[in-house]
Amino acid sequence: MARPKASATLSRKEQIVQQAALLFKTNGYNATTMRHLAEQVEMEAASLYNHISSKEEILQHICFSVATDFITHLLKVEKSAQSPAEKIEAIIRFHIHMMLTRFEDVYVSNRDWKHLKEPALSQFLQQRRQYENKMANIIADGINKQQFREVHANLAVLSLLSGVRCVEFWHRNKRGISTQQLTEDLVTLLLKGLKA
Amino acid sequence: MARPKASATLSRKEQIVQQAALLFKTNGYNATTMRHLAEQVEMEAASLYNHISSKEEILQHICFSVATDFITHLLKVEKSAQSPAEKIEAIIRFHIHMMLTRFEDVYVSNRDWKHLKEPALSQFLQQRRQYENKMANIIADGINKQQFREVHANLAVLSLLSGVRCVEFWHRNKRGISTQQLTEDLVTLLLKGLKA
Repeated sequence: MARPKASATLSRKEQIVQQAALLFKTNGYNATTMRHLAEQVEMEAASLYNHISSKEEILQHICFSVATDFITHLLKVEKSAQSPAEKIEAIIRFHIHMMLTRFEDVYVSNRDWKHLKEPALSQFLQQRRQYENKMANIIADGINKQQFREVHANLAVLSLLSGVRCVEFWHRNKRGISTQQLTEDLVTLLLKGLKA
Repeated sequence: MARPKASATLSRKEQIVQQAALLFKTNGYNATTMRHLAEQVEMEAASLYNHISSKEEILQHICFSVATDFITHLLKVEKSAQSPAEKIEAIIRFHIHMMLTRFEDVYVSNRDWKHLKEPALSQFLQQRRQYENKMANIIADGINKQQFREVHANLAVLSLLSGVRCVEFWHRNKRGISTQQLTEDLVTLLLKGLKA
């Protein structure tokens, strides 16, 4: 899976954030120190602080960068002329795409947001609630238009967002399945279910 | 949601494990100490050690107790005369049931197994692989019998097991939905999908 940008074209700060995401994912946010990060990016700790003031700043950067990508995509889909079913499919495909191309960032953002400090924490949670509510509105619209089954719309959101996270397990195992088959099978499973 | 046993009928050790699961879930495994646990169960630390030798022992107890419940259920389903579709539905219903009745234990077991020490860690991971493979075999059988769609069986397992974890989010939000509706809607979403 290619990173979104080749390392050579990343700014020094972007490289540091990328390596930090990898450390947070591998060793955990709490267990990662600025000293580990300096070693990982082969810099003196003092020079590292020229780019980044704290671990917390990096975490904020990762969480809000991922959130912004998701929200930007959702807003575009929301105002498109697509049907509710097409909109939800587009959103699921985008989630799978993000988990394939920005895996460490999404992983860290999914788990470590709870280490954000105020006011970032409240802001992040508010954005997430807003995102889930917008998805629930599309699903409710689809239920109204009889494109979707009569289920609790918010539960459907949670179930879809949990389901796409299985791409994490696939990253661990990569059991003989191409990213294309992974995407198509997962879209099928989440939207049409397992039953034939 | 009732705990599986009322506190009065739990042994002292079971009560300690139950409170430990709550602390691990709330504060994280690493951040929980035996001293916190002693405070939580209102015992002197020295008395606590009469029941439990270490945090690690409690974690093992939780992880293997949850794993044993899941495996025992799966083995019973596996040798039943049910169709593959009925078997998978029974397994999903059991996962939802476990997440509703043993929430803290399942939560801790899903996340903190990585803090297990060897040989417990390898044994736990082997049991999990065995569980996933047995589920994949039932799904492959269902695909053969045209009860299920032609998807990658292992991916379907991961997608179902991720999907049921949305009950975690429901525990955080409890957005006006009964446990019965939660169960039926989730079974529908996972097996038949969102699309009407």
